[in-house]
Amino acid sequence: MQPLNPAFAEEVKASFAQQSIMKLIGARLSLAEPGVIEITLPFRTDLTQQNGYLHAGVVTTIADSACGYAAYSLMPAGSAVLSVEFKVNLLRPAQAETFVARAEVIKTGRTLIVVRADVFGIAANGDKELVATMQGTMICLRNRE
Amino acid sequence: MQPLNPAFAEEVKASFAQQSIMKLIGARLSLAEPGVIEITLPFRTDLTQQNGYLHAGVVTTIADSACGYAAYSLMPAGSAVLSVEFKVNLLRPAQAETFVARAEVIKTGRTLIVVRADVFGIAANGDKELVATMQGTMICLRNRE
Amino acid sequence: MQPLNPAFAEEVKASFAQQSIMKLIGARLSLAEPGVIEITLPFRTDLTQQNGYLHAGVVTTIADSACGYAAYSLMPAGSAVLSVEFKVNLLRPAQAETFVARAEVIKTGRTLIVVRADVFGIAANGDKELVATMQGTMICLRNRE
Amino acid sequence: MQPLNPAFAEEVKASFAQQSIMKLIGARLSLAEPGVIEITLPFRTDLTQQNGYLHAGVVTTIADSACGYAAYSLMPAGSAVLSVEFKVNLLRPAQAETFVARAEVIKTGRTLIVVRADVFGIAANGDKELVATMQGTMICLRNRE
Repeated sequence: MQPLNPAFAEEVKASFAQQSIMKLIGARLSLAEPGVIEITLPFRTDLTQQNGYLHAGVVTTIADSACGYAAYSLMPAGSAVLSVEFKVNLLRPAQAETFVARAEVIKTGRTLIVVRADVFGIAANGDKELVATMQGTMICLRNRE
Repeated sequence: MQPLNPAFAEEVKASFAQQSIMKLIGARLSLAEPGVIEITLPFRTDLTQQNGYLHAGVVTTIADSACGYAAYSLMPAGSAVLSVEFKVNLLRPAQAETFVARAEVIKTGRTLIVVRADVFGIAANGDKELVATMQGTMICLRNRE
Repeated sequence: MQPLNPAFAEEVKASFAQQSIMKLIGARLSLAEPGVIEITLPFRTDLTQQNGYLHAGVVTTIADSACGYAAYSLMPAGSAVLSVEFKVNLLRPAQAETFVARAEVIKTGRTLIVVRADVFGIAANGDKELVATMQGTMICLRNRE
Repeated sequence: MQPLNPAFAEEVKASFAQQSIMKLIGARLSLAEPGVIEITLPFRTDLTQQNGYLHAGVVTTIADSACGYAAYSLMPAGSAVLSVEFKVNLLRPAQAETFVARAEVIKTGRTLIVVRADVFGIAANGDKELVATMQGTMICLRNRE
């Protein structure tokens, strides 16, 4: 996909750096291409639910930011992005050494952008399995920044 | 709704206490009735997205735990609960002093329980507005604890 | 809720009359109030899935139209409505003499409107049970008609 | 994916033939492979919403059946399938000569199967565009047939 904003990668990085929740949970932006974003999160025991798995809300947090920035990477300069809605299917217990949320834009529009994100758990030996998948809608607010 | 497990309130509290993510974000269980759960989260700047609003993933975190425990409160003793899927509509920027996720069971079943959660933002003067709503499915795993 | 278009009820009726799928399945508009719409569908064996229940897609058809018109009833004159997305939980087998989809607007906005619909099955003796629930987003296209 | 039931293709066809709604709307099963199902629907004016596009509920009807049979194709002999929930994003006005819903299983489980379906509009000249995408959950009921 062709970015409308040549500075999209810098702007994604700058905006990500302002998401203080990412610092709290220890997530980092690991890929920023036009329409494709990856966020990486090492497992930590203070991010878990009652069974010691990564909490579904934390899985959602990285998937949602990945979706938001995948949409944002295709927006014109001066836009802002907000999440409209998302749906998440939790496919397996989120047990892994590291998690990667990879979002890809399915459909761009002037106002709404539909995005999908897969969240993978990656084991110490490199084995990778899909733990959750998100389908969501982002909105482009123009001339807001 | 009639709880099948007379000790449901204690078990919800005990399980909630094991969700270490709740400690990290500063959320507490504020209501535990049969089929109805509330979780309260004071706003903190380290929970925000790029505009300073509570991140949608954090909104989802408290909504999902509220849904899970609303389902769990109606399960027989010895059950465990996991989230199958949820969908969240973000209705307004999550700007408030405190947030409350209130979940109510819509439909119980032997295996699957459908739950809805509303997340309200509460201002310093007590004004309350709906910031997000979740519709999700929880699964009951029997004889797992 | 206050309608912006005093002729909303006539316009909902006129638009509903143009949905030829409603004629095909035998559905009728049974309530049109500001932000609240009901559509009634008598059971027919040619609307069923493999077990003889109303097909989930037909349940969705009446829920989606109810949501769309609930949103439309609150839009300014000259607007058009389209569905952005919806999520449906199927709660019970859709077996009944008549089905009623009742939609209510949860949140209006200039562009996006969030709506919920419950679909009830109504037995010959008047007993009513919830068979499905939808949470969806509608979009307002201005100056399109 | 490996089917557990060697007769899966015949059973999918037999069950599809019992979905009387498919006859009413003119849909046919056009592909049945393990974990992958396609349903084809020629456009008809009596399937439309107020603008003359295929109604979102009809789009959902073929997507849901495709998802259900994709899940069913991987179930053991003697199982039955029901839809638990689905979420649909409507990406473009559903205007085309023919529509094809293609479903693929994302994750199988003993009880729950997660499936995705894309619905394409195909023009007279063969041009194909994605009009909607579904992410849903199906349930396997054992020893029911």
